[in-house]
Amino acid sequence: MPAFHLRVSFFSCVVFLLTALSVWNVPSAFSADGETGLFPQNATILFQGDSITDGNRGRNLDPNHILGHGYQFILASRLGALNSEMNWKFLNRGVSGDTVQSMRARWDKDTIELKPDVLSILIGVNDYWRGASAEEYRADFDELLAYTKEKLPDVKLIIIEPFATRKSSKKPEADIADYQAASRELAKKYGAVYVPTQEMFNEHIASQPEENYWIWDGVHPTYNGHWLLCEAWLDALMNAK
Amino acid sequence: MPAFHLRVSFFSCVVFLLTALSVWNVPSAFSADGETGLFPQNATILFQGDSITDGNRGRNLDPNHILGHGYQFILASRLGALNSEMNWKFLNRGVSGDTVQSMRARWDKDTIELKPDVLSILIGVNDYWRGASAEEYRADFDELLAYTKEKLPDVKLIIIEPFATRKSSKKPEADIADYQAASRELAKKYGAVYVPTQEMFNEHIASQPEENYWIWDGVHPTYNGHWLLCEAWLDALMNAK
Repeated sequence: MPAFHLRVSFFSCVVFLLTALSVWNVPSAFSADGETGLFPQNATILFQGDSITDGNRGRNLDPNHILGHGYQFILASRLGALNSEMNWKFLNRGVSGDTVQSMRARWDKDTIELKPDVLSILIGVNDYWRGASAEEYRADFDELLAYTKEKLPDVKLIIIEPFATRKSSKKPEADIADYQAASRELAKKYGAVYVPTQEMFNEHIASQPEENYWIWDGVHPTYNGHWLLCEAWLDALMNAK
Repeated sequence: MPAFHLRVSFFSCVVFLLTALSVWNVPSAFSADGETGLFPQNATILFQGDSITDGNRGRNLDPNHILGHGYQFILASRLGALNSEMNWKFLNRGVSGDTVQSMRARWDKDTIELKPDVLSILIGVNDYWRGASAEEYRADFDELLAYTKEKLPDVKLIIIEPFATRKSSKKPEADIADYQAASRELAKKYGAVYVPTQEMFNEHIASQPEENYWIWDGVHPTYNGHWLLCEAWLDALMNAK
């Protein structure tokens, strides 16, 4: 597979020879690319959220189905395999249908007691879709994050921007932007890494003839869309290092 | 993130400047790396096998859980997202517990009728584990592949080497090698791309202090191990191009 393509043909031969001599290690598409420093040795990374995070995860301790499918599985799989010397442990406690309020009801058991070093949260599309106002969402999420920081003062927070496409709107499409603004503001308030998603999805959807290629029902990513989420998450973390 | 590291310090500065001028596109960890030519436009890629492939996949048409978790999800997600212009479609019909014989019983409905352009098969650990001899496995698999080639003469075949670790043995550990030899031989006979796995798992397991890091019960990969499977699959295909 080609490591790179040449723009300036004049230099091509020289560069090719010099590079052949000088390249120590061209990372493959599956290399770690400096991810090792993302989290401390033996860190526990917990994914929280709604159905997008749930991904049909197993409800018992059988490690065969423990993580569900989706961006969280890909991230755990990639980061765990390529940085095995760090011995990171990945957990998922996403629950389908959750809003911030219903997630709050299980927060002690499903988050605080697990003592994560890193906590990634994707929540909001059910608040948006089922009629909680953006103000209620902001207030509920604010309380949840304040409580989390009180109980786990050293936790590294990652907040993923909730997203939706035109298809999912029961309300005017513009509404989701208010929930997104709230999540972005709270990420700043609590020092969380913020993972923007809506614009990325919009751009990909616009450039693809098949309407359901990235998000099939306006809310849930397809397997293609989960890769985008995974990329966005990792990009945000790498940029925040 | 660094695109490459320099081995020969004498050339470093020259190479750096020339490369900065000449690099058109250094692929990120998530770039496609020439995968576009792997399969034809609009190809259907079908994963078949036992529980390792099943991955708790959905049994209805809900695209949220259609692929299960595991190497097949990562491959579909990565190849679909990074080569979206090819509009590939990924299907999974793995069924937990299957041997070659039980997979054969559902083959018309679950494989032939789906008319895949690419068919990836991982089967054998249940044959091994439940007492089918390596000879029976070879004969059953041979018949299945002959039938498949008769019904789908143009299908591109990929055969993944079945694997097991010491933990899974009811029989002497060495046995699995006989099943592996059979699968490798049949891959050659039917012109399939062969994906070696056992040695890769052995090496990773040997270098990791935590016993269950890659394969948790002797048979099923963890999320870490599924990334290895995914890498091995893609490497075999890229090398066969």
